[in-house]
Amino acid sequence: MRMRKKKHTDERLAACAQLLITEPESHRGNYRSLFPGEGNEEKELHLEIGCGKGAFILELARRNPEVLYVAVEYCREAMLLAVEKLAREGLGNVLFLNADAAKLAEYFAPGEVCRIYLNFSDPWPKARHAKRRLTAPGFLAVYREILKEGGYIRQKTDNVLLFESSLESYAACGWRCEDICRDLHNSPWAEDNILTEYEINFSGKGLTINAVTAYRQ
Amino acid sequence: MRMRKKKHTDERLAACAQLLITEPESHRGNYRSLFPGEGNEEKELHLEIGCGKGAFILELARRNPEVLYVAVEYCREAMLLAVEKLAREGLGNVLFLNADAAKLAEYFAPGEVCRIYLNFSDPWPKARHAKRRLTAPGFLAVYREILKEGGYIRQKTDNVLLFESSLESYAACGWRCEDICRDLHNSPWAEDNILTEYEINFSGKGLTINAVTAYRQ
Repeated sequence: MRMRKKKHTDERLAACAQLLITEPESHRGNYRSLFPGEGNEEKELHLEIGCGKGAFILELARRNPEVLYVAVEYCREAMLLAVEKLAREGLGNVLFLNADAAKLAEYFAPGEVCRIYLNFSDPWPKARHAKRRLTAPGFLAVYREILKEGGYIRQKTDNVLLFESSLESYAACGWRCEDICRDLHNSPWAEDNILTEYEINFSGKGLTINAVTAYRQ
Repeated sequence: MRMRKKKHTDERLAACAQLLITEPESHRGNYRSLFPGEGNEEKELHLEIGCGKGAFILELARRNPEVLYVAVEYCREAMLLAVEKLAREGLGNVLFLNADAAKLAEYFAPGEVCRIYLNFSDPWPKARHAKRRLTAPGFLAVYREILKEGGYIRQKTDNVLLFESSLESYAACGWRCEDICRDLHNSPWAEDNILTEYEINFSGKGLTINAVTAYRQ
């Protein structure tokens, strides 16, 4: 067969080592210094948790060169595709972290992060898996530790169950919800909306996207 | 936080080692002997390529105890959840292989496999990624090598682009398509349809599921 064989994940990740954060515990409070260039201490650090194949973080980082981004992804094989995509672009404001979101408070210092993006997180539809949803109270406690005061989570999802459960969780944990929108693509925010791979695949299929901004307070 | 911390993927996979196929090259032609019990040489071997979190293969294996299944998944973290799910059930007819589908002809002998399931494979919507779709001609060449004569692929997907491109690919490569269905949930096959995690999440959201059986000839 003429298909180019995929090299092993490790080998391909190693070829983009300049974009990967290793030993995250050792950078606690100093993530901004990992990015190339000067004046990074003045910049904001934002996270995307669950960056998947990286279409969203790529466009976000292009539009906001003054912001530093860490893209977190638990699945190494998905992260690899995002890393290679960003490596081709040569942007200097995105680094990648292969990690479990439950551990982020061990990796980031209190207040080190200004904003968190959650896009189309796994809905874990069964009740007995509710704690695994990335907006479950256990995870919100982690985000509260690493977000600065006034920082926020920007979430979008097509899954109504996940969205309602997230709104309940934000309220129960004392986060302030704004810009709640149940049809993002037909809303005033549609113009600035950056599409994820997921939204691209489903465009034109009539799925409605829910979105919310939840402020840490 | 009270959330149970996830152990590392390696450690958790090691705890289910009896369900994992390692060194797949070394079992070429002898996969059936890896399963527990007797009389396995008489049984059929079926693959699911891209088993994700394993809801489909679990129910399939429950319903068909006389069939031996190998569940193939490229993403170790997704596979881990499937492996743990099956380990809890204690079925003896499913084993897991963490592998790239492009390499299956190196792992399985000609004709060793009777049937392949492809459920909601990544649509890779961009034209320049078309070769990565699991029904691209390069992959069909791999499946042809490992499937016995008269063996077939059973595919389902909600993605119209992937479905049309798959039908073209089957035709171009000389596979015979039967049971083409563009609304599986409202068809005669709905009754026997085993839902994947993906279908469960989207049930009631009006997505239509496309399905086809493609025979190797």
